[in-house]
Amino acid sequence: MPMELTDLAERAGEWLSGTGPESDIVISCRIRLARNLRGFTFLTRASDEEKKLLEQSISGRLAEIDFGKKTTYLPLHETDMLERLFLVERHLISKELAAAESPRGVMLGDNESLAIMVNEEDHLRIQAMRSGLELSALWNEINGYDQAIERKLDYAFSSQFGYLTSCPTNVGTGMRVSVMMHLPVLVMTKQIEKVFQAMNKIGLAVRGLYGERTRGLGDFYQISNQVTLGKDEETIVHDLAEVIPKVMEYERKWRESLLKENRAQLEDAVYRAQGLLSAARVISSEETMNLLSSIRMGVNLGLITGIPIAKVNELFIQTQPAHLQIIEGRALQPEERDQLRARFIRQRLDLKAD
Amino acid sequence: MPMELTDLAERAGEWLSGTGPESDIVISCRIRLARNLRGFTFLTRASDEEKKLLEQSISGRLAEIDFGKKTTYLPLHETDMLERLFLVERHLISKELAAAESPRGVMLGDNESLAIMVNEEDHLRIQAMRSGLELSALWNEINGYDQAIERKLDYAFSSQFGYLTSCPTNVGTGMRVSVMMHLPVLVMTKQIEKVFQAMNKIGLAVRGLYGERTRGLGDFYQISNQVTLGKDEETIVHDLAEVIPKVMEYERKWRESLLKENRAQLEDAVYRAQGLLSAARVISSEETMNLLSSIRMGVNLGLITGIPIAKVNELFIQTQPAHLQIIEGRALQPEERDQLRARFIRQRLDLKAD
Repeated sequence: MPMELTDLAERAGEWLSGTGPESDIVISCRIRLARNLRGFTFLTRASDEEKKLLEQSISGRLAEIDFGKKTTYLPLHETDMLERLFLVERHLISKELAAAESPRGVMLGDNESLAIMVNEEDHLRIQAMRSGLELSALWNEINGYDQAIERKLDYAFSSQFGYLTSCPTNVGTGMRVSVMMHLPVLVMTKQIEKVFQAMNKIGLAVRGLYGERTRGLGDFYQISNQVTLGKDEETIVHDLAEVIPKVMEYERKWRESLLKENRAQLEDAVYRAQGLLSAARVISSEETMNLLSSIRMGVNLGLITGIPIAKVNELFIQTQPAHLQIIEGRALQPEERDQLRARFIRQRLDLKAD
Repeated sequence: MPMELTDLAERAGEWLSGTGPESDIVISCRIRLARNLRGFTFLTRASDEEKKLLEQSISGRLAEIDFGKKTTYLPLHETDMLERLFLVERHLISKELAAAESPRGVMLGDNESLAIMVNEEDHLRIQAMRSGLELSALWNEINGYDQAIERKLDYAFSSQFGYLTSCPTNVGTGMRVSVMMHLPVLVMTKQIEKVFQAMNKIGLAVRGLYGERTRGLGDFYQISNQVTLGKDEETIVHDLAEVIPKVMEYERKWRESLLKENRAQLEDAVYRAQGLLSAARVISSEETMNLLSSIRMGVNLGLITGIPIAKVNELFIQTQPAHLQIIEGRALQPEERDQLRARFIRQRLDLKAD
């Protein structure tokens, strides 16, 4: 295993630090750009030989670029599945890139604020992430990376369609902007469905911490644009930047009203989660996320003191299966993992066992 | 409210003391005899006038009898519903007697070892209860009470059918013997269905702590004879006394095997229950029973120390709705009750709140 991964496991990316604006509700924001090279076959049709060539030449060019921060390139075809799942859990590569077999890789920027996937669905997928809600600053940042890359690599671009992508749903800006929100009280008060409906109406998608399948786990909702064509980047960013505060206010309004009118129910959820996490001897990843969500809510509402929010944010990631195994330094059977997870959480949250 | 009830709420009957034989698994055993008076209409057909007459004369006669212990007679038509539900929760009267409206009552023996219902389905329902598994001793005890009553009151008895009862299912001995067992590990390992099937095959019924509807709540199973005719009392007692130890051994076998092969699962259940009971701010009666069951198992397996089993046994009863209200001294709305219950359990089990 590359030394870097074992290191990473014990730290968290900046995007989990809980230091950005509105980070009681907005965990992080992320922008990714899909780019392809002019004159090269799209990956859906490329031969293994072409993929190999693409991976080598792209990674070579990326290495020449000064991104203003320390970067490391990981050839993923040389890593094992556990390492790749670890990167998926950290949101540094996609599940698809982890599962693929052909030559491919990822360039990681220091502090996990930048990840450039090579040979995913498109030749390049450039991603920038940061803590809290800071979409315009993030757009400026990733736009800078994109321009730096464009100086070294010739992008497939049509004056009519914009950036050309492997899948037509990404054509145009090739951009997806997404905001990861923690909405425990909207879930508890059953208001969350209204958020979904409102988002759908204005063409935004709602996913979970790890995509569609995990929607709602840990009360996390990732809100992102669906349309990449017919709007420029600034407009896409601006539209999302207008909507997110409304969802935040909705969550805050319900928090206040619940604190006022049904404090016992809130306290019950928070303290039960704390009680269970200090008591459990066996715990699944799914249950962990749901209990950590109540802990996170408790910290934000002032019902729990002495636990930094960054620690709770990190635990959502560190208690995932691949993370536990990387931290423990060996492969673990699921039952063993569930026991280790229970112990790990107690230690990290400094909870006394009953 | 009669002074006696408020007193009772804070103490528990002997049958909950956890001192009898096999009381890690057998909570208590109980025998009841259905009796009717010769020359009086069965209650299903009696007029209110006759019921009044019956209640007065029976209670008068009972008062003359020396049962070898202090007794108190409660005319139930003079009590309110909350008080009657309280007695139901303590297993001193039946739900039917609580819900009825005509003149009726119950004579309670000191320590709750004896309860004689007047004007339930039959003119008299004599009940004796004690902690643990001691069926023959209990039979001798209740047989003594029965004979003492028979010296004062003329029972309806047929040389062909035995004791005549209001419902034909009780004719003959008029006897129901029941044993309350706590079988948490047979539930956890999903073996309990086999117990039901075996019991049904040999004509025994399985109910819950408060009858059929509550079967399984708190992992309590009340096993009793169905047949009252064609077997004498000693045989009924003997048959049950033969079967119960087999169920006990089954539970013990699975406890040992789980301790050996899946200790983490057992510990997890026990410590989670402890964690939840120390953390909850709102808790239903049903959840309480299920968590207390794990606590009880934990104490019996040595995983929890410092909590006397009698205290856990008592809590199953004291956390029931009517008990909480009698202890608090006022009527409580369900939500208020669920909050009070959470606090009450923490205090009684001396659990620190998170």
